[in-house]
Amino acid sequence: MTVQPPEPTVPPAEPVKVALLGCGTVGTQVVRLLRLDSGEIAERVGAPVELVGIAVRSLDADRGPGVPAELLTTDAHSLVRAADVVVELIGGTTTARDLVLEAIGGGAGVVTANKALLATHGPQLYAAADAAGVDLLYEAAVAGAVPVVRGVRESLAGDRVARVLGIVNGTTNYILDEMTNGGYDFDVALKEAQELGYAEADPTADVEGHDAAAKAAILASLAFHTRVSLDDVDCEGITGVTAGDIASARDAGGVIKLLAIAERIEDTRGEAVAVRVHPVILPVDHPLAGVRGAYNAVVVEAEAAGRLMFYGAGAGGAPTASAVLGDLVAAARHRGQGGRAPAESAYAELPIAGPERVTSRRQVRLAVDDRPGVLAHLATTFADHGVSIETVRQQPGTGEAATLAIVTHDAPEAALRATVEALRETVGVRELLSDYRVERA
Amino acid sequence: MTVQPPEPTVPPAEPVKVALLGCGTVGTQVVRLLRLDSGEIAERVGAPVELVGIAVRSLDADRGPGVPAELLTTDAHSLVRAADVVVELIGGTTTARDLVLEAIGGGAGVVTANKALLATHGPQLYAAADAAGVDLLYEAAVAGAVPVVRGVRESLAGDRVARVLGIVNGTTNYILDEMTNGGYDFDVALKEAQELGYAEADPTADVEGHDAAAKAAILASLAFHTRVSLDDVDCEGITGVTAGDIASARDAGGVIKLLAIAERIEDTRGEAVAVRVHPVILPVDHPLAGVRGAYNAVVVEAEAAGRLMFYGAGAGGAPTASAVLGDLVAAARHRGQGGRAPAESAYAELPIAGPERVTSRRQVRLAVDDRPGVLAHLATTFADHGVSIETVRQQPGTGEAATLAIVTHDAPEAALRATVEALRETVGVRELLSDYRVERA
Repeated sequence: MTVQPPEPTVPPAEPVKVALLGCGTVGTQVVRLLRLDSGEIAERVGAPVELVGIAVRSLDADRGPGVPAELLTTDAHSLVRAADVVVELIGGTTTARDLVLEAIGGGAGVVTANKALLATHGPQLYAAADAAGVDLLYEAAVAGAVPVVRGVRESLAGDRVARVLGIVNGTTNYILDEMTNGGYDFDVALKEAQELGYAEADPTADVEGHDAAAKAAILASLAFHTRVSLDDVDCEGITGVTAGDIASARDAGGVIKLLAIAERIEDTRGEAVAVRVHPVILPVDHPLAGVRGAYNAVVVEAEAAGRLMFYGAGAGGAPTASAVLGDLVAAARHRGQGGRAPAESAYAELPIAGPERVTSRRQVRLAVDDRPGVLAHLATTFADHGVSIETVRQQPGTGEAATLAIVTHDAPEAALRATVEALRETVGVRELLSDYRVERA
Repeated sequence: MTVQPPEPTVPPAEPVKVALLGCGTVGTQVVRLLRLDSGEIAERVGAPVELVGIAVRSLDADRGPGVPAELLTTDAHSLVRAADVVVELIGGTTTARDLVLEAIGGGAGVVTANKALLATHGPQLYAAADAAGVDLLYEAAVAGAVPVVRGVRESLAGDRVARVLGIVNGTTNYILDEMTNGGYDFDVALKEAQELGYAEADPTADVEGHDAAAKAAILASLAFHTRVSLDDVDCEGITGVTAGDIASARDAGGVIKLLAIAERIEDTRGEAVAVRVHPVILPVDHPLAGVRGAYNAVVVEAEAAGRLMFYGAGAGGAPTASAVLGDLVAAARHRGQGGRAPAESAYAELPIAGPERVTSRRQVRLAVDDRPGVLAHLATTFADHGVSIETVRQQPGTGEAATLAIVTHDAPEAALRATVEALRETVGVRELLSDYRVERA
């Protein structure tokens, strides 16, 4: 390779011009951090960083403390054209997409915290940034301040990711925590979370798992170099989780968490990527089991590195702004140096596997007749579907019914689903109480 | 800023030439990973990566499986001169320093896993790399595969680190775990760790905290942009930790861990950096409390991001090689693009604070006479030194003696040390059993 070593860094006299699109909670914190540490940021970028404008919908709207009125503009397009780096914090998927494409087309680096944008238009945006040779950085779009995007993209750049599993939605983690610690039912815990501001008035996007699914799509695209969009994610929320499920998990040394899981599958049909969001029983000594309240954490399992975990605040103005600033410094630095972060190439182009190709362990809880012979019937049903049983645990029952919690070994999803259906018809089974995936410690 | 956007990336025909210095456990894994994923690595670098040679001490020595004999050479200097990126895995601080300086002088990027080298000659090497405008990357030198170096340097580049605290030595964490779970004394747990290969025949560097101190110096330099060397670290190991100390911590809901702690201090004497390694009592719900066996984890507390944690395998050939590869891909990519990672500038130049400027909470355990009035004497001793007491817990004693565990509020180290000395002379005190720093959850 004949490239000469670059000249020693001399900070250019010209500042890097930064445009901020949107100035809500996160934007206000970005402005604050840029001003607070401007000297340190200039050191790290190799040039001063100048905030040249803040695009807002209306000049009359309330602005956060410390946001200078003279930088506000309603002309986002002109602002984007004048910038070296554009920070997109307006949310939504239409105007945001247009402005990001305009920035990329003009040669500016882009930093975004917009998970919906990436989960919907990610492939188009990554391809545009790749073709233009500019940065498109989005640490803040997944799990707030938790630096998992950089970890997967850069730290594991010479490794092979097998699986990513994470707690990426603080609202549901808070609700499950409350249910676990207080013994509450879902409705009660949700109401409390709403009163405390941890859940929105319409909690659908969180509790049905859609927010986690968007983040799962982004993480899967990144980890497996494959186009994954929101529609590819098999998604189940936490509205069906009961206080009884949680108590039963605890009795067996586990906790229930809502996980986003993206994994590389290798089966007889070849290599593929499966992405899903659903509640999982974790043993208490799993690194994700201890993640409390509104914290987020992502475990990445790689071939050589083994299991890594990234943990931190999953939301909030200041933590999200910290992640934005990290990306902003990188993009500004690259803009000055001519370098950039590795592109989000979808070169692997793996097919998306349906849930039927996933292998997992299951815990099935059943209310059964409390009489001899029932377990034999159940065991036969499992065996008939080629699913082997790891443990059977009898829980205190009432009257003539007993409760059995049966955990399987790893088995194909299709066999597990068929087993569960057959169990409903098995002699002695009164009711299927619950059906959860179970992770190992 | 007038820099034009870079041209779209076209992988150059010329490969990036990589020289490997040393080929032990980690080097063998680096060779394996480079060959296993050469296509993916080329995608991420933007050019093929070619291993041009492996410097070894003797061509006759055993080499790892898969290491090609034709790449071996004993002429490290010629190899370094021919390389675009040099991976230093020979260890030690003299030859390694000379070769790294030679590589930097020749314009090559450098990747090293050598903590002793950085803790001893870090400032000289960072300055040389900075002046030459080349990468000096060392993720693998701190906590194996745990991507904390990149996290602090890049993810938090726009934030302000207040404190770094980590479990960065797997041997001591394994020993403390065994003591905790098995109730063993230190000597017994050490012997077991040695038999299982978790501790070396001469365990001094691990159990006295020197290994952790080297990593603490590196993390402190990075987090606070200040020259910190091994001699600046206030270091205490785990040889004084007893089974009784651990049992007492557990009774109070805590575990004892050996932590490396680097923090920014702001007091009447101004701003400074304090770096120390010592055993600490952590409440069980602290994120570091659950880190088991040979795993490592580092918590970074930043002004905006709040508390982040990075967790993973702290040692081992494959995990360390994964970290080396991540850095290698970055350095190779930068070599092709003309960019590079942010320099390790020591621009903050903060003074190093002695331990007397640190503030902490303490748990002091005392054997005292089991009679009225003793607690009043003790309380007076604390009050005389301006140290306030948070909790007092009486533990089951024997005969006429009782055991008291007293936890203080935050207090200056000097006051705490004076208190402890005075406690030895306080009426009713039979013995000072232990004295630990205590962290909050």
